[in-house]
Amino acid sequence: MADRPGGPPVNADPRFSLNQWTTRHWPMPDLLSGCAAKGVRGVGLWREPVAEYGLARTAKLVGDNGLTVTSLCRGGFFQQPDAIADNKRAIEEAAALGAPVLVLVSGGLPDGSRDIDGARTRVADALAELAPFAGQHNVQLAIEPLHPMYCSDRCVVSTLAQALDLASPHSPDEVGVVIDTYHLWWDPTAYDGIARAGREDRIAAFQVADWTTPLPEGVLTGRGMLGDGCVELRRFRQAVEATGYTGPIEVEIFNEELWAMPGADALSLTLSRFAEHVV
Amino acid sequence: MADRPGGPPVNADPRFSLNQWTTRHWPMPDLLSGCAAKGVRGVGLWREPVAEYGLARTAKLVGDNGLTVTSLCRGGFFQQPDAIADNKRAIEEAAALGAPVLVLVSGGLPDGSRDIDGARTRVADALAELAPFAGQHNVQLAIEPLHPMYCSDRCVVSTLAQALDLASPHSPDEVGVVIDTYHLWWDPTAYDGIARAGREDRIAAFQVADWTTPLPEGVLTGRGMLGDGCVELRRFRQAVEATGYTGPIEVEIFNEELWAMPGADALSLTLSRFAEHVV
Repeated sequence: MADRPGGPPVNADPRFSLNQWTTRHWPMPDLLSGCAAKGVRGVGLWREPVAEYGLARTAKLVGDNGLTVTSLCRGGFFQQPDAIADNKRAIEEAAALGAPVLVLVSGGLPDGSRDIDGARTRVADALAELAPFAGQHNVQLAIEPLHPMYCSDRCVVSTLAQALDLASPHSPDEVGVVIDTYHLWWDPTAYDGIARAGREDRIAAFQVADWTTPLPEGVLTGRGMLGDGCVELRRFRQAVEATGYTGPIEVEIFNEELWAMPGADALSLTLSRFAEHVV
Repeated sequence: MADRPGGPPVNADPRFSLNQWTTRHWPMPDLLSGCAAKGVRGVGLWREPVAEYGLARTAKLVGDNGLTVTSLCRGGFFQQPDAIADNKRAIEEAAALGAPVLVLVSGGLPDGSRDIDGARTRVADALAELAPFAGQHNVQLAIEPLHPMYCSDRCVVSTLAQALDLASPHSPDEVGVVIDTYHLWWDPTAYDGIARAGREDRIAAFQVADWTTPLPEGVLTGRGMLGDGCVELRRFRQAVEATGYTGPIEVEIFNEELWAMPGADALSLTLSRFAEHVV
Protein backbone atom coordinates (compact mmCIF):
# COMPACT_ATOMS: atom_id res chain seq x y z
CA MET A 1 0.00 0.00 0.00
CA ALA A 2 2.63 2.50 1.10
CA ASP A 3 4.54 2.59 -2.16
CA ARG A 4 1.71 4.18 -4.08
CA PRO A 5 0.25 6.81 -1.75
CA GLY A 6 -2.56 8.86 -3.17
CA GLY A 7 -1.86 10.01 -6.68
CA PRO A 8 -3.81 12.89 -8.16
CA PRO A 9 -7.15 13.85 -6.55
CA VAL A 10 -10.02 11.78 -7.87
CA ASN A 11 -13.61 12.88 -8.05
CA ALA A 12 -15.67 10.23 -6.35
CA ASP A 13 -17.64 7.90 -8.57
CA PRO A 14 -21.35 8.41 -7.79
CA ARG A 15 -21.65 4.75 -6.77
CA PHE A 16 -18.70 4.91 -4.37
CA SER A 17 -19.54 4.52 -0.70
CA LEU A 18 -17.04 4.64 2.12
CA ASN A 19 -17.62 2.02 4.75
CA GLN A 20 -16.75 3.62 8.05
CA TRP A 21 -14.50 0.77 9.18
CA THR A 22 -12.10 1.56 6.32
CA THR A 23 -11.21 4.77 8.15
CA ARG A 24 -11.99 3.34 11.51
CA HIS A 25 -10.48 6.02 13.72
CA TRP A 26 -11.83 9.02 11.81
CA PRO A 27 -14.26 10.83 14.13
CA MET A 28 -17.84 10.89 12.83
CA PRO A 29 -18.07 14.64 12.01
CA ASP A 30 -14.69 14.57 10.25
CA LEU A 31 -15.66 11.44 8.34
CA LEU A 32 -18.91 12.94 7.11
CA SER A 33 -17.50 16.36 6.17
CA GLY A 34 -14.41 14.69 4.73
CA CYS A 35 -16.54 12.52 2.48
CA ALA A 36 -18.67 15.47 1.39
CA ALA A 37 -15.53 17.47 0.59
CA LYS A 38 -14.42 14.80 -1.87
CA GLY A 39 -17.79 14.40 -3.56
CA VAL A 40 -18.56 11.10 -1.89
CA ARG A 41 -22.30 10.51 -1.75
CA GLY A 42 -22.65 7.43 0.44
CA VAL A 43 -21.28 6.04 3.67
CA GLY A 44 -21.67 2.67 5.34
CA LEU A 45 -21.90 3.27 9.08
CA TRP A 46 -21.31 1.03 12.09
CA ARG A 47 -23.53 0.82 15.11
CA GLU A 48 -20.86 1.45 17.74
CA PRO A 49 -19.61 4.82 16.43
CA VAL A 50 -23.20 5.82 15.63
CA ALA A 51 -24.20 5.07 19.21
CA GLU A 52 -21.19 6.94 20.49
CA TYR A 53 -21.94 10.07 18.45
CA GLY A 54 -25.68 9.70 18.95
CA LEU A 55 -28.22 8.19 16.58
CA ALA A 56 -30.31 11.29 15.89
CA ARG A 57 -27.26 13.52 15.80
CA THR A 58 -25.59 11.21 13.27
CA ALA A 59 -28.71 11.08 11.09
CA LYS A 60 -28.90 14.87 11.06
CA LEU A 61 -25.21 15.33 10.26
CA VAL A 62 -25.40 12.79 7.44
CA GLY A 63 -28.20 14.84 5.88
CA ASP A 64 -26.48 18.16 6.52
CA ASN A 65 -23.50 16.86 4.54
CA GLY A 66 -25.67 15.74 1.64
CA LEU A 67 -24.82 12.10 2.25
CA THR A 68 -26.88 8.96 2.40
CA VAL A 69 -26.23 5.91 4.57
CA THR A 70 -25.87 2.97 2.19
CA SER A 71 -25.80 0.31 4.90
CA LEU A 72 -25.61 -0.13 8.64
CA CYS A 73 -23.13 -2.66 10.02
CA ARG A 74 -24.08 -4.83 11.68
CA GLY A 75 -26.69 -7.12 13.01
CA GLY A 76 -26.44 -10.86 13.38
CA PHE A 77 -24.33 -12.76 15.93
CA PHE A 78 -27.31 -15.01 16.44
CA GLN A 79 -25.45 -17.28 18.86
CA GLN A 80 -25.87 -14.62 21.53
CA PRO A 81 -28.81 -15.00 23.91
CA ASP A 82 -30.19 -11.49 23.34
CA ALA A 83 -29.74 -11.60 19.58
CA ILE A 84 -33.35 -11.06 18.54
CA ALA A 85 -33.85 -8.00 20.75
CA ASP A 86 -30.51 -6.58 19.71
CA ASN A 87 -31.21 -7.10 16.03
CA LYS A 88 -34.57 -5.38 16.37
CA ARG A 89 -32.76 -2.39 17.83
CA ALA A 90 -30.33 -2.52 14.91
CA ILE A 91 -33.24 -2.48 12.45
CA GLU A 92 -34.70 0.54 14.21
CA GLU A 93 -31.33 2.27 14.07
CA ALA A 94 -31.02 1.57 10.35
CA ALA A 95 -34.48 3.02 9.81
CA ALA A 96 -33.60 6.11 11.84
CA LEU A 97 -30.52 6.66 9.69
CA GLY A 98 -32.45 6.11 6.47
CA ALA A 99 -30.19 3.12 5.72
CA PRO A 100 -31.98 0.72 3.37
CA VAL A 101 -29.83 -2.22 4.45
CA LEU A 102 -28.73 -3.84 7.71
CA VAL A 103 -25.71 -6.09 7.18
CA LEU A 104 -25.90 -9.37 9.11
CA VAL A 105 -22.81 -11.18 10.31
CA SER A 106 -24.61 -14.27 11.44
CA GLY A 107 -22.36 -15.40 14.28
CA GLY A 108 -20.23 -18.46 14.85
CA LEU A 109 -20.49 -21.46 17.12
CA PRO A 110 -21.23 -20.89 20.79
CA ASP A 111 -18.18 -21.48 23.00
CA GLY A 112 -17.41 -25.17 23.20
CA SER A 113 -20.02 -26.14 20.64
CA ARG A 114 -19.38 -28.33 17.59
CA ASP A 115 -22.98 -28.15 16.38
CA ILE A 116 -22.55 -26.35 13.07
CA ASP A 117 -25.88 -27.57 11.71
CA GLY A 118 -27.57 -26.24 14.83
CA ALA A 119 -25.86 -22.88 14.44
CA ARG A 120 -27.03 -22.65 10.85
CA THR A 121 -30.58 -23.57 11.80
CA ARG A 122 -30.44 -20.82 14.40
CA VAL A 123 -29.66 -18.30 11.65
CA ALA A 124 -32.66 -19.46 9.64
CA ASP A 125 -34.89 -19.23 12.71
CA ALA A 126 -33.67 -15.73 13.54
CA LEU A 127 -34.31 -14.55 9.99
CA ALA A 128 -37.86 -15.85 10.17
CA GLU A 129 -38.39 -13.89 13.35
CA LEU A 130 -36.73 -10.69 12.15
CA ALA A 131 -37.77 -10.44 8.49
CA PRO A 132 -41.30 -9.11 9.07
CA PHE A 133 -40.01 -6.58 11.61
CA ALA A 134 -37.42 -5.43 9.07
CA GLY A 135 -40.11 -5.15 6.40
CA GLN A 136 -42.23 -2.98 8.67
CA HIS A 137 -39.27 -0.63 9.00
CA ASN A 138 -38.41 -0.63 5.28
CA VAL A 139 -35.03 -2.11 6.09
CA GLN A 140 -33.66 -5.03 4.11
CA LEU A 141 -31.68 -7.60 6.08
CA ALA A 142 -28.52 -8.47 4.16
CA ILE A 143 -27.01 -11.88 4.94
CA GLU A 144 -23.27 -11.60 4.48
CA PRO A 145 -21.40 -14.80 3.71
CA LEU A 146 -18.04 -14.41 5.44
CA HIS A 147 -14.83 -16.11 4.36
CA PRO A 148 -14.75 -19.69 5.70
CA MET A 149 -11.81 -18.80 7.95
CA TYR A 150 -14.36 -16.96 10.12
CA CYS A 151 -16.81 -19.86 10.27
CA SER A 152 -16.20 -20.93 13.86
CA ASP A 153 -16.10 -17.59 15.60
CA ARG A 154 -17.90 -15.00 13.45
CA CYS A 155 -20.16 -16.39 10.79
CA VAL A 156 -21.40 -19.87 9.98
CA VAL A 157 -22.71 -18.53 6.66
CA SER A 158 -19.70 -19.17 4.43
CA THR A 159 -20.86 -19.17 0.81
CA LEU A 160 -23.11 -17.10 -1.39
CA ALA A 161 -25.17 -20.19 -2.28
CA GLN A 162 -25.79 -20.81 1.41
CA ALA A 163 -26.79 -17.18 1.99
CA LEU A 164 -29.20 -17.32 -0.93
CA ASP A 165 -30.72 -20.54 0.39
CA LEU A 166 -31.22 -18.88 3.78
CA ALA A 167 -32.82 -15.87 2.11
CA SER A 168 -35.13 -17.90 -0.10
CA PRO A 169 -38.11 -18.28 2.26
CA HIS A 170 -38.40 -14.51 2.55
CA SER A 171 -39.40 -11.61 0.35
CA PRO A 172 -36.41 -9.94 -1.34
CA ASP A 173 -37.66 -6.66 0.13
CA GLU A 174 -36.98 -8.09 3.56
CA VAL A 175 -33.96 -10.36 3.11
CA GLY A 176 -31.09 -10.08 0.65
CA VAL A 177 -27.38 -10.88 0.58
CA VAL A 178 -24.08 -9.03 0.61
CA ILE A 179 -21.60 -9.64 -2.19
CA ASP A 180 -18.17 -8.90 -0.67
CA THR A 181 -15.15 -9.63 -2.85
CA TYR A 182 -12.90 -10.33 0.14
CA HIS A 183 -15.12 -13.12 1.37
CA LEU A 184 -16.11 -14.66 -1.96
CA TRP A 185 -13.20 -14.30 -4.39
CA TRP A 186 -11.87 -17.86 -3.87
CA ASP A 187 -15.22 -19.58 -4.49
CA PRO A 188 -15.30 -21.49 -7.80
CA THR A 189 -19.06 -20.91 -7.87
CA ALA A 190 -18.91 -17.19 -7.01
CA TYR A 191 -19.95 -15.90 -10.43
CA ASP A 192 -22.77 -18.40 -10.70
CA GLY A 193 -23.85 -17.23 -7.26
CA ILE A 194 -23.82 -13.58 -8.29
CA ALA A 195 -25.95 -14.37 -11.34
CA ARG A 196 -28.36 -16.31 -9.14
CA ALA A 197 -28.47 -13.48 -6.59
CA GLY A 198 -29.38 -11.11 -9.40
CA ARG A 199 -32.09 -13.39 -10.82
CA GLU A 200 -33.57 -13.76 -7.36
CA ASP A 201 -33.34 -10.00 -6.73
CA ARG A 202 -31.27 -10.50 -3.59
CA ILE A 203 -28.25 -8.21 -4.02
CA ALA A 204 -28.63 -5.88 -1.05
CA ALA A 205 -25.06 -4.62 -0.95
CA PHE A 206 -21.81 -4.88 -2.86
CA GLN A 207 -18.57 -4.43 -0.94
CA VAL A 208 -15.01 -4.49 -2.17
CA ALA A 209 -11.63 -5.22 -0.59
CA ASP A 210 -8.58 -7.04 -1.87
CA TRP A 211 -6.97 -10.28 -0.65
CA THR A 212 -3.35 -10.18 0.44
CA THR A 213 -1.06 -12.58 2.28
CA PRO A 214 0.43 -13.36 4.71
CA LEU A 215 -2.63 -13.08 6.91
CA PRO A 216 -2.03 -11.46 10.30
CA GLU A 217 -2.61 -13.26 13.60
CA GLY A 218 -6.35 -13.53 14.18
CA VAL A 219 -6.98 -12.85 10.46
CA LEU A 220 -9.26 -9.90 11.13
CA THR A 221 -7.19 -6.97 9.95
CA GLY A 222 -5.50 -8.36 6.87
CA ARG A 223 -7.79 -7.04 4.16
CA GLY A 224 -5.92 -5.52 1.29
CA MET A 225 -6.18 -2.05 -0.24
CA LEU A 226 -7.80 -2.24 -3.68
CA GLY A 227 -5.16 -3.30 -6.17
CA ASP A 228 -2.68 -4.64 -3.62
CA GLY A 229 -3.93 -8.21 -3.86
CA CYS A 230 -5.12 -10.90 -6.21
CA VAL A 231 -8.87 -10.31 -6.43
CA GLU A 232 -10.34 -9.59 -9.85
CA LEU A 233 -12.22 -6.56 -8.51
CA ARG A 234 -13.31 -5.24 -11.87
CA ARG A 235 -14.60 -8.64 -12.94
CA PHE A 236 -16.65 -8.84 -9.75
CA ARG A 237 -18.06 -5.36 -10.32
CA GLN A 238 -18.96 -6.22 -13.89
CA ALA A 239 -20.61 -9.48 -12.83
CA VAL A 240 -22.68 -7.68 -10.20
CA GLU A 241 -23.69 -4.98 -12.67
CA ALA A 242 -24.54 -7.60 -15.31
CA THR A 243 -27.40 -8.67 -13.05
CA GLY A 244 -28.87 -5.16 -13.26
CA TYR A 245 -27.53 -3.95 -9.91
CA THR A 246 -27.08 -0.19 -9.94
CA GLY A 247 -26.61 0.38 -6.22
CA PRO A 248 -23.63 1.60 -4.23
CA ILE A 249 -20.22 -0.02 -4.18
CA GLU A 250 -18.95 0.12 -0.62
CA VAL A 251 -15.27 -0.06 0.14
CA GLU A 252 -14.76 -1.92 3.39
CA ILE A 253 -11.14 -2.62 4.30
CA PHE A 254 -9.91 -3.71 7.74
CA ASN A 255 -6.22 -2.91 7.65
CA GLU A 256 -3.91 -1.62 10.36
CA GLU A 257 -1.75 0.32 7.93
CA LEU A 258 -4.77 2.11 6.52
CA TRP A 259 -6.10 2.79 10.01
CA ALA A 260 -2.80 4.44 10.92
CA MET A 261 -3.24 7.03 8.15
CA PRO A 262 -5.13 10.32 8.64
CA GLY A 263 -8.71 9.73 7.52
CA ALA A 264 -8.62 12.18 4.63
CA ASP A 265 -5.45 10.58 3.24
CA ALA A 266 -6.91 7.10 3.57
CA LEU A 267 -10.01 8.27 1.71
CA SER A 268 -7.92 9.86 -1.05
CA LEU A 269 -5.94 6.68 -1.50
CA THR A 270 -9.12 4.61 -1.51
CA LEU A 271 -10.76 6.84 -4.12
CA SER A 272 -7.72 6.69 -6.34
CA ARG A 273 -7.47 2.90 -6.10
CA PHE A 274 -11.21 2.57 -6.65
CA ALA A 275 -10.89 4.49 -9.92
CA GLU A 276 -7.88 2.42 -10.93
CA HIS A 277 -9.08 -1.08 -10.01
CA VAL A 278 -12.85 -1.18 -9.63
CA VAL A 279 -14.72 1.07 -12.07
CA MET B 1 -3.84 -29.18 24.27
CA ALA B 2 -1.55 -28.89 27.29
CA ASP B 3 -4.23 -29.39 29.91
CA ARG B 4 -4.88 -32.96 28.90
CA PRO B 5 -1.48 -34.47 28.18
CA GLY B 6 -1.47 -38.14 27.33
CA GLY B 7 -3.74 -40.14 29.51
CA PRO B 8 -3.37 -43.90 29.71
CA PRO B 9 -1.48 -45.69 26.89
CA VAL B 10 -3.72 -46.51 23.96
CA ASN B 11 -3.25 -49.38 21.55
CA ALA B 12 -3.28 -47.93 18.07
CA ASP B 13 -6.41 -48.45 16.02
CA PRO B 14 -5.45 -50.53 12.95
CA ARG B 15 -6.64 -47.72 10.66
CA PHE B 16 -4.61 -45.05 12.44
CA SER B 17 -1.77 -43.55 10.42
CA LEU B 18 0.62 -40.90 11.68
CA ASN B 19 1.35 -38.21 9.16
CA GLN B 20 4.98 -37.29 9.61
CA TRP B 21 4.31 -33.54 9.79
CA THR B 22 2.36 -34.08 13.04
CA THR B 23 5.67 -34.93 14.71
CA ARG B 24 7.67 -32.82 12.34
CA HIS B 25 11.00 -32.78 14.18
CA TRP B 26 11.09 -36.49 15.05
CA PRO B 27 14.04 -38.01 13.17
CA MET B 28 13.02 -40.66 10.64
CA PRO B 29 14.42 -43.72 12.44
CA ASP B 30 12.91 -42.63 15.76
CA LEU B 31 9.57 -41.91 14.08
CA LEU B 32 9.41 -45.32 12.46
CA SER B 33 10.55 -47.31 15.52
CA GLY B 34 8.39 -45.11 17.76
CA CYS B 35 5.32 -45.88 15.66
CA ALA B 36 6.09 -49.58 15.62
CA ALA B 37 6.53 -49.57 19.39
CA LYS B 38 2.99 -48.26 19.83
CA GLY B 39 1.39 -50.67 17.39
CA VAL B 40 0.91 -48.04 14.69
CA ARG B 41 0.74 -49.68 11.26
CA GLY B 42 0.82 -46.75 8.86
CA VAL B 43 2.72 -43.53 8.34
CA GLY B 44 2.22 -40.67 5.91
CA LEU B 45 5.65 -39.47 4.86
CA TRP B 46 6.91 -36.19 3.37
CA ARG B 47 9.30 -35.88 0.49
CA GLU B 48 11.82 -33.60 2.20
CA PRO B 49 12.62 -35.81 5.20
CA VAL B 50 12.52 -38.88 2.95
CA ALA B 51 15.10 -37.27 0.66
CA GLU B 52 17.18 -36.26 3.64
CA TYR B 53 17.23 -39.75 5.10
CA GLY B 54 17.48 -41.40 1.68
CA LEU B 55 14.67 -42.87 -0.39
CA ALA B 56 15.84 -46.50 -0.47
CA ARG B 57 16.99 -46.35 3.13
CA THR B 58 13.59 -45.01 4.22
CA ALA B 59 11.73 -47.68 2.24
CA LYS B 60 13.82 -50.41 3.87
CA LEU B 61 13.40 -49.01 7.39
CA VAL B 62 9.64 -48.69 6.92
CA GLY B 63 9.50 -52.39 6.04
CA ASP B 64 11.88 -53.41 8.82
CA ASN B 65 9.50 -51.77 11.29
CA GLY B 66 6.47 -53.56 9.87
CA LEU B 67 4.93 -50.31 8.69
CA THR B 68 3.31 -49.25 5.45
CA VAL B 69 3.42 -45.79 3.90
CA THR B 70 -0.21 -44.67 3.56
CA SER B 71 0.56 -41.55 1.53
CA LEU B 72 3.40 -39.40 0.34
CA CYS B 73 3.12 -35.64 0.78
CA ARG B 74 3.26 -33.90 -1.52
CA GLY B 75 3.14 -33.19 -5.18
CA GLY B 76 1.36 -30.32 -6.82
CA PHE B 77 2.39 -26.64 -6.75
CA PHE B 78 1.58 -26.52 -10.42
CA GLN B 79 2.31 -22.80 -10.70
CA GLN B 80 6.02 -23.62 -10.63
CA PRO B 81 7.80 -23.90 -13.98
CA ASP B 82 9.30 -27.34 -13.31
CA ALA B 83 6.10 -28.77 -11.80
CA ILE B 84 5.57 -31.65 -14.23
CA ALA B 85 9.10 -32.98 -13.91
CA ASP B 86 9.02 -32.57 -10.14
CA ASN B 87 5.67 -34.33 -9.83
CA LYS B 88 6.94 -37.22 -11.92
CA ARG B 89 9.81 -37.57 -9.47
CA ALA B 90 7.30 -37.48 -6.61
CA ILE B 91 5.30 -40.27 -8.26
CA GLU B 92 8.46 -42.36 -8.60
CA GLU B 93 9.29 -41.72 -4.95
CA ALA B 94 5.81 -42.79 -3.87
CA ALA B 95 6.19 -45.97 -5.90
CA ALA B 96 9.60 -46.66 -4.36
CA LEU B 97 8.09 -46.29 -0.88
CA GLY B 98 5.13 -48.51 -1.73
CA ALA B 99 2.83 -45.56 -1.05
CA PRO B 100 -0.45 -46.00 -2.92
CA VAL B 101 -1.21 -42.27 -2.84
CA LEU B 102 0.57 -39.04 -3.70
CA VAL B 103 -1.13 -36.05 -2.08
CA LEU B 104 -1.36 -33.01 -4.37
CA VAL B 105 -1.40 -29.48 -3.02
CA SER B 106 -2.19 -27.84 -6.30
CA GLY B 107 -0.47 -24.49 -5.86
CA GLY B 108 -1.71 -20.93 -5.68
CA LEU B 109 -1.52 -17.96 -7.99
CA PRO B 110 1.85 -17.05 -9.47
CA ASP B 111 3.34 -13.91 -7.91
CA GLY B 112 1.44 -10.85 -9.06
CA SER B 113 -1.22 -12.84 -10.89
CA ARG B 114 -4.97 -12.41 -10.46
CA ASP B 115 -5.86 -15.11 -12.96
CA ILE B 116 -7.59 -17.64 -10.75
CA ASP B 117 -9.38 -19.32 -13.67
CA GLY B 118 -6.04 -19.72 -15.40
CA ALA B 119 -4.49 -21.24 -12.29
CA ARG B 120 -7.35 -23.72 -12.05
CA THR B 121 -7.04 -24.65 -15.72
CA ARG B 122 -3.34 -25.25 -15.11
CA VAL B 123 -4.23 -27.81 -12.43
CA ALA B 124 -6.53 -29.63 -14.85
CA ASP B 125 -3.82 -29.61 -17.54
CA ALA B 126 -1.19 -30.94 -15.13
CA LEU B 127 -3.48 -33.75 -14.01
CA ALA B 128 -4.02 -34.77 -17.63
CA GLU B 129 -0.29 -34.94 -18.13
CA LEU B 130 0.48 -36.75 -14.89
CA ALA B 131 -2.40 -39.21 -14.49
CA PRO B 132 -1.15 -41.83 -17.00
CA PHE B 133 2.35 -41.65 -15.52
CA ALA B 134 0.88 -42.17 -12.04
CA GLY B 135 -1.16 -45.10 -13.31
CA GLN B 136 1.94 -46.73 -14.77
CA HIS B 137 3.51 -46.53 -11.32
CA ASN B 138 0.42 -47.78 -9.46
CA VAL B 139 0.23 -44.50 -7.61
CA GLN B 140 -3.05 -42.63 -7.21
CA LEU B 141 -2.85 -38.86 -7.38
CA ALA B 142 -4.96 -37.38 -4.58
CA ILE B 143 -6.21 -33.85 -5.16
CA GLU B 144 -6.46 -32.16 -1.79
CA PRO B 145 -8.91 -29.28 -1.49
CA LEU B 146 -7.27 -26.86 0.92
CA HIS B 147 -9.14 -24.42 3.12
CA PRO B 148 -10.04 -21.28 1.11
CA MET B 149 -7.70 -19.20 3.27
CA TYR B 150 -4.84 -20.87 1.34
CA CYS B 151 -6.32 -20.20 -2.09
CA SER B 152 -3.96 -17.44 -3.19
CA ASP B 153 -0.62 -18.86 -2.09
CA ARG B 154 -0.95 -22.64 -1.71
CA CYS B 155 -3.93 -24.21 -3.41
CA VAL B 156 -6.54 -22.89 -5.82
CA VAL B 157 -8.55 -26.07 -5.24
CA SER B 158 -10.76 -25.00 -2.37
CA THR B 159 -13.76 -27.33 -2.21
CA LEU B 160 -14.41 -31.03 -2.43
CA ALA B 161 -16.86 -30.49 -5.30
CA GLN B 162 -14.15 -28.69 -7.24
CA ALA B 163 -11.63 -31.48 -6.55
CA LEU B 164 -14.12 -34.09 -7.72
CA ASP B 165 -14.81 -32.11 -10.89
CA LEU B 166 -11.07 -31.96 -11.56
CA ALA B 167 -10.75 -35.69 -10.96
CA SER B 168 -13.72 -36.62 -13.15
CA PRO B 169 -11.95 -36.94 -16.53
CA HIS B 170 -9.60 -39.55 -15.09
CA SER B 171 -9.80 -43.12 -13.88
CA PRO B 172 -10.28 -43.37 -10.09
CA ASP B 173 -7.22 -45.61 -10.06
CA GLU B 174 -5.17 -42.68 -11.23
CA VAL B 175 -6.85 -39.64 -9.64
CA GLY B 176 -8.75 -39.37 -6.37
CA VAL B 177 -9.27 -36.78 -3.65
CA VAL B 178 -8.23 -36.19 -0.06
CA ILE B 179 -10.91 -35.69 2.58
CA ASP B 180 -9.27 -33.55 5.29
CA THR B 181 -11.48 -32.39 8.12
CA TYR B 182 -9.42 -29.26 8.74
CA HIS B 183 -9.95 -28.01 5.21
CA LEU B 184 -13.56 -29.06 4.70
CA TRP B 185 -15.38 -28.81 8.02
CA TRP B 186 -16.94 -25.40 7.31
CA ASP B 187 -18.42 -26.38 3.92
CA PRO B 188 -22.23 -26.64 3.99
CA THR B 189 -21.94 -29.20 1.17
CA ALA B 190 -19.15 -31.26 2.77
CA TYR B 191 -21.26 -34.31 3.56
CA ASP B 192 -22.87 -34.31 0.13
CA GLY B 193 -19.35 -34.12 -1.28
CA ILE B 194 -18.16 -37.08 0.78
CA ALA B 195 -21.12 -39.16 -0.42
CA ARG B 196 -20.37 -38.15 -4.01
CA ALA B 197 -16.67 -38.94 -3.56
CA GLY B 198 -17.66 -42.39 -2.34
CA ARG B 199 -20.10 -43.01 -5.21
CA GLU B 200 -17.43 -41.96 -7.68
CA ASP B 201 -14.80 -44.13 -5.93
CA ARG B 202 -12.49 -41.15 -5.41
CA ILE B 203 -11.59 -41.24 -1.71
CA ALA B 204 -7.83 -41.68 -1.85
CA ALA B 205 -7.06 -40.48 1.66
CA PHE B 206 -8.80 -39.37 4.82
CA GLN B 207 -6.98 -36.98 7.13
CA VAL B 208 -8.06 -35.51 10.43
CA ALA B 209 -7.17 -32.38 12.39
CA ASP B 210 -9.26 -30.02 14.47
CA TRP B 211 -10.07 -26.33 13.91
CA THR B 212 -9.13 -23.85 16.62
CA THR B 213 -8.96 -20.08 16.84
CA PRO B 214 -7.40 -17.58 16.96
CA LEU B 215 -5.39 -18.46 13.87
CA PRO B 216 -1.67 -17.66 14.07
CA GLU B 217 0.05 -15.23 11.72
CA GLY B 218 0.40 -16.84 8.32
CA VAL B 219 -2.30 -19.39 9.27
CA LEU B 220 -0.08 -22.40 8.55
CA THR B 221 0.58 -23.80 11.99
CA GLY B 222 -2.76 -23.34 13.71
CA ARG B 223 -4.26 -26.78 13.27
CA GLY B 224 -5.80 -28.12 16.41
CA MET B 225 -5.12 -31.35 18.27
CA LEU B 226 -8.07 -33.71 17.92
CA GLY B 227 -10.75 -32.67 20.38
CA ASP B 228 -9.40 -29.18 21.01
CA GLY B 229 -11.59 -27.54 18.38
CA CYS B 230 -15.04 -27.47 16.87
CA VAL B 231 -14.87 -30.08 14.11
CA GLU B 232 -17.28 -32.99 14.28
CA LEU B 233 -14.48 -35.48 13.73
CA ARG B 234 -16.51 -38.59 14.48
CA ARG B 235 -19.30 -37.46 12.17
CA PHE B 236 -16.76 -36.99 9.38
CA ARG B 237 -15.28 -40.43 10.02
CA GLN B 238 -18.71 -42.01 9.97
CA ALA B 239 -19.63 -40.20 6.75
CA VAL B 240 -16.44 -41.37 5.06
CA GLU B 241 -16.99 -44.93 6.25
CA ALA B 242 -20.61 -44.85 5.14
CA THR B 243 -19.33 -44.66 1.57
CA GLY B 244 -17.53 -47.98 2.05
CA TYR B 245 -14.09 -46.49 2.70
CA THR B 246 -12.01 -48.84 4.85
CA GLY B 247 -8.60 -47.23 4.34
CA PRO B 248 -6.30 -45.48 6.78
CA ILE B 249 -7.18 -42.42 8.83
CA GLU B 250 -4.17 -40.16 8.84
CA VAL B 251 -3.65 -37.62 11.57
CA GLU B 252 -2.00 -34.54 10.10
CA ILE B 253 -1.66 -31.60 12.50
CA PHE B 254 0.57 -28.57 11.94
CA ASN B 255 0.93 -27.11 15.40
CA GLU B 256 3.89 -25.42 17.08
CA GLU B 257 2.96 -26.68 20.52
CA LEU B 258 2.80 -30.25 19.29
CA TRP B 259 6.08 -29.86 17.43
CA ALA B 260 7.75 -28.71 20.65
CA MET B 261 6.89 -32.02 22.36
CA PRO B 262 9.14 -35.09 22.19
CA GLY B 263 7.92 -37.23 19.28
CA ALA B 264 6.88 -40.19 21.41
CA ASP B 265 4.82 -37.96 23.72
CA ALA B 266 3.17 -36.25 20.78
CA LEU B 267 2.27 -39.64 19.33
CA SER B 268 0.86 -40.85 22.66
CA LEU B 269 -1.29 -37.76 22.94
CA THR B 270 -2.44 -38.14 19.35
CA LEU B 271 -3.36 -41.80 19.84
CA SER B 272 -5.27 -41.02 22.98
CA ARG B 273 -7.20 -38.18 21.34
CA PHE B 274 -7.83 -40.30 18.26
CA ALA B 275 -9.46 -42.96 20.42
CA GLU B 276 -11.48 -40.33 22.26
CA HIS B 277 -12.68 -38.18 19.37
CA VAL B 278 -12.39 -40.05 16.06
CA VAL B 279 -13.14 -43.77 16.30
